[in-house]
Amino acid sequence: MNCNTPTDIQFSFEGFTKRGGLTDEHADGWGIAFFEGPAARCFIDHRPASDSQIAEFIRQYPIRSCNVISHIRKATIGEVKLQNCHPFTRELWGQTWVFAHNGDLKNFTPSLTGDFLPIGDTDSEQAFCLLLQTLKQTFGTRPKGQAPKPQEIGQILKKISGEIAAYGTFNMLISNGEALFAYCSTKLEYIVRQHPFKTAHLVDCDLQVDFGQVTTQNDRVAVIATTALTDDEVWTAFQPQSFLMFQDGQPVSEFA
Amino acid sequence: MNCNTPTDIQFSFEGFTKRGGLTDEHADGWGIAFFEGPAARCFIDHRPASDSQIAEFIRQYPIRSCNVISHIRKATIGEVKLQNCHPFTRELWGQTWVFAHNGDLKNFTPSLTGDFLPIGDTDSEQAFCLLLQTLKQTFGTRPKGQAPKPQEIGQILKKISGEIAAYGTFNMLISNGEALFAYCSTKLEYIVRQHPFKTAHLVDCDLQVDFGQVTTQNDRVAVIATTALTDDEVWTAFQPQSFLMFQDGQPVSEFA
Repeated sequence: MNCNTPTDIQFSFEGFTKRGGLTDEHADGWGIAFFEGPAARCFIDHRPASDSQIAEFIRQYPIRSCNVISHIRKATIGEVKLQNCHPFTRELWGQTWVFAHNGDLKNFTPSLTGDFLPIGDTDSEQAFCLLLQTLKQTFGTRPKGQAPKPQEIGQILKKISGEIAAYGTFNMLISNGEALFAYCSTKLEYIVRQHPFKTAHLVDCDLQVDFGQVTTQNDRVAVIATTALTDDEVWTAFQPQSFLMFQDGQPVSEFA
Repeated sequence: MNCNTPTDIQFSFEGFTKRGGLTDEHADGWGIAFFEGPAARCFIDHRPASDSQIAEFIRQYPIRSCNVISHIRKATIGEVKLQNCHPFTRELWGQTWVFAHNGDLKNFTPSLTGDFLPIGDTDSEQAFCLLLQTLKQTFGTRPKGQAPKPQEIGQILKKISGEIAAYGTFNMLISNGEALFAYCSTKLEYIVRQHPFKTAHLVDCDLQVDFGQVTTQNDRVAVIATTALTDDEVWTAFQPQSFLMFQDGQPVSEFA
């Protein structure tokens, strides 16, 4: 989720976590990170999202944020352990970076120099480390507050993501709290909600919300997911092998 | 807390969080990190620990770990914001590193080269970055699984901690999940609990536990705190300007 004003994700999270063991088979752990300025609250758990007390707590405790990344895991490479749960986090240029990946990569063993190394055993965390390593190699070490512009960062992320996607399926989200970047290898969809707000109904459980009741006219919220979370709104499918950058609740560039 | 078997911290956390706004004035945020292998579950919140729904959840949800670091903050340098809440976390050598500091440092502006930069505004996070930067400079980048031995790491941490303490009060805990390192600038106390276990009663609220009922004969648990958490056990005070390394629930070296 990427927004122009801090927004809670209760509605989407309710349906999303159902896919972690109930309406879908992604039951090997889950996680969610909420940016708050340059820092993030990150909750991860190796239990199924549909049966996790931490997820239950998050469903009941609204946390408002302009950038949120959440993930439910279906283990392909790496055991069901905390160290293999997404989203993964690192620091670069005094900013928190958060990353989640849906898909799997075959024979992916990038040359990591040591500035960013995986803590767990997943192909995904290796990809994350490669993305950050390439950003650091490209733009150098920089003092806090002097990170490259999102547009510059996006160009590099797009290029490396395309290279990583040659190893398999690489649908991913990454954010530094300033923008949310999405690479679609095979499947991602998004929706932008803005005034005039309507009602929406979840795919994964019988829950409806009237966004008009919980927003102001100026709010704008983009939600990106592997498959649409609601069944009565029009979601936009990403083109395969495409890259989008979201800021203030909308896509701002296709980096064509 | 450092243990030889995964242990929950419910009892200590109950009393400790009272100090976050009730029995003490450290009401400017709090946090707790539980190691699980090389990864950690880290919860941080800018609200007072005594009045935080996340802390309330943690008090009711036992998480077992061999290394736990928790902190309640009294803001000296840096606003009451998420980015300034301890513990701080980073990755080095494919390990999660967790750090918390009690005290404050004056005119402390270490030369940070950029491999580890503060996300927030505290003197504490700068000290953490300096510790990790020095470890990386000393031992180099290393592949995952080839981190230096805790004893080697401890020697460097002790030296740099002593230098940092010249800038003010520097009571700190740091861990990579393999050992827990403690530097006492002015005040730290610890206790080792092992067979035969007894009862203990908290200082900060009227709660007693019989550890014999919740342990096995082989368990050993060390708890380190600025001031003793119980009023009917004998805690050992650190010498000022001393450094201890804890493994398997006991101090293993004084690095004399």
